[in-house]
Amino acid sequence: MDETRQLIERFFAALESRDWAGFAEVLHPDVVYEIPQSRERIRGRDRYVQFNREFPGDWHLTPTSILVDAAAGVGRFDWRLGEGPIEEAFVFFGVSEGLLATVTDFWPEPYEPPPGREHLTERW
Amino acid sequence: MDETRQLIERFFAALESRDWAGFAEVLHPDVVYEIPQSRERIRGRDRYVQFNREFPGDWHLTPTSILVDAAAGVGRFDWRLGEGPIEEAFVFFGVSEGLLATVTDFWPEPYEPPPGREHLTERW
Repeated sequence: MDETRQLIERFFAALESRDWAGFAEVLHPDVVYEIPQSRERIRGRDRYVQFNREFPGDWHLTPTSILVDAAAGVGRFDWRLGEGPIEEAFVFFGVSEGLLATVTDFWPEPYEPPPGREHLTERW
Repeated sequence: MDETRQLIERFFAALESRDWAGFAEVLHPDVVYEIPQSRERIRGRDRYVQFNREFPGDWHLTPTSILVDAAAGVGRFDWRLGEGPIEEAFVFFGVSEGLLATVTDFWPEPYEPPPGREHLTERW
C-alpha cells in the first residue's frame, strides 16, 4: 500500500514539474489511460507521456486526497488552467508489476440543481 | 479500515434496498452531504435521509469499487434511473466517531473531446 501511494505521489509530482522521465518511470509500459466521459483511450507509456507533454496551456494540479489499497488507488486533485478557476477532478489507478497500469480520469463539471429539493438544501 | 469499508458497504446496500432505518444507522447525526458540482449542501442525518427517500424515480446503484483508509473512503458506483443508461459516479466519505460524517457526491457527465489529440487517442 505504501508503494502504491508513493507511485501516485510521484505521478502527481512529475506531472506538475513536467518531469517526463520521472513520469514515465511510474508508468507500466502497457499502461492504458481512459477518459470515460469522452470515451477516449490511449494505449502505452510513450503515447500517454506524449499526451501529457502536449497538453496545452499552463495547467497545474495539486493532489488533495489519495486513497490506496494494494493494487488500486484514487487521487482527488485540484486542477487549474492559467488564471482560470480551480476545478476538482479524480483519477483512479490500477497497479501491475509495481507500476501504474491503468489510469482513469474523471472531470466533473458544474451544473444547476434540479428543482424539488430546495426545502432540504443550501447553496454555496 | 475494515470498519470504514463496512460502513460504506452498508451505505450502498441500505440505499439500494430503501432501508431508511439502516441507512440512518451508518450516518453521523451531524452528517454533511455536499454536491460540489451544483454547490448544494444538506446538513444533518434527518434531512439527508429525507433527501434520499424523496429522490424521484426508480433509481438503482451498484458499487463497483471501494477504497478506504482509517477515516476516509471513496465508492465508485454505477447508477441507473429506470430504463436509462448506466452512469458512473463517485462518493467520498469522511468518518467521525465510527459513522459517516461527510458524504460528497460527484456526477461526471459525458462530453465530446477537445480537438488536437486524435493522433494519440482511440474512441469507444
